Amino acid sequence: MKSNTKAKILSAGARVIHLKGYHNTGIQELVTAAGIPKGSFYFYFKSKEEFGLELLDYYTKAICAMVDELSKDNSISPLSRLRRFFEWSFASLEGNDFKGGCPIGNLSQEMADVNENFREKLKDAFDAIKKGVAIQLKEAQERKEIFDSLDVPELTEFIVSSWQGALLQMKVTRNTTPGKAFEQMVFERILKGVNPSNL
Amino acid sequence: MKSNTKAKILSAGARVIHLKGYHNTGIQELVTAAGIPKGSFYFYFKSKEEFGLELLDYYTKAICAMVDELSKDNSISPLSRLRRFFEWSFASLEGNDFKGGCPIGNLSQEMADVNENFREKLKDAFDAIKKGVAIQLKEAQERKEIFDSLDVPELTEFIVSSWQGALLQMKVTRNTTPGKAFEQMVFERILKGVNPSNL
Repeated sequence: MKSNTKAKILSAGARVIHLKGYHNTGIQELVTAAGIPKGSFYFYFKSKEEFGLELLDYYTKAICAMVDELSKDNSISPLSRLRRFFEWSFASLEGNDFKGGCPIGNLSQEMADVNENFREKLKDAFDAIKKGVAIQLKEAQERKEIFDSLDVPELTEFIVSSWQGALLQMKVTRNTTPGKAFEQMVFERILKGVNPSNL
Repeated sequence: MKSNTKAKILSAGARVIHLKGYHNTGIQELVTAAGIPKGSFYFYFKSKEEFGLELLDYYTKAICAMVDELSKDNSISPLSRLRRFFEWSFASLEGNDFKGGCPIGNLSQEMADVNENFREKLKDAFDAIKKGVAIQLKEAQERKEIFDSLDVPELTEFIVSSWQGALLQMKVTRNTTPGKAFEQMVFERILKGVNPSNL
């Protein structure tokens, strides 16, 4: 029962903060969204910050589960798995009227500079995402889907940055253009190693 | 005198909000940073939102001035101008202990979903940046610095997204790796059109 209430606060909080941000969300809104009395909040979390840090674990677990899920699908190639993941993220954002985006990216922008505890957890979250992406790229390289000369750590860093930037741009433009440019440049040019002089 | 005070509030506010974010900054902090009495704030701005929207104009003007400055330097090629701009942005972030980043990117993440007036101004700011980048890419294409087959609008979209994502990642990792990966992938691979099979 107790842990149920805590889980309820976290999942309701995850939805509210995803759309409104951390500083812009009050504890009253969190408890209203979870449908619990305000006092209960402090039974589970010493402070809003403690809640925020547990929320990051919550988001990270959800992302890791997704990355694991991705790795397991042996019916498609590593590159197709990767592309499916990014396509899913852009389609989710579009399906949500271009609101929300990546909660880890949003909180990085809002919190990394002002709270060191948050920054460390955000870094861990991105490291988990990068690890998942690098596994697919390495497997793609082993299977000769992408060129040997591509530097997987550098490529991973660049792809994750570019993906985050595309999500950010989509929130501002409210259209799919930044996501489409990402897919085209990453999957049809960089990873295919197309030399523009041959086109 | 009057407009001087307003300019003071905007420039002091620009520094505070760049580091702390919009919702995380109170009007008291803004007036303290500007060294003016609280009442004066409301003489110049009807509300915090009105201030925030004027602040976006302030940031956009500063960025447009930088983009204009960039275009004027005829001593180097368009591609070198572009590279210098991104290098400058990464070096500035590093010089600031990886705090701050792009104020337009930060406010996009924080505000685009929750305030339509902000979102429209943020979109205009990014359009101005994209316009500046596209001019250099087009000139680079005319001078045969980059391949004709590269689609300038798509490339511009992708480069601006990737740059924003790299700045975001640098704030989280507190190191230069994401910026270096951006420079390497954009300037040494995509824009040079290097085919990995030739390496």
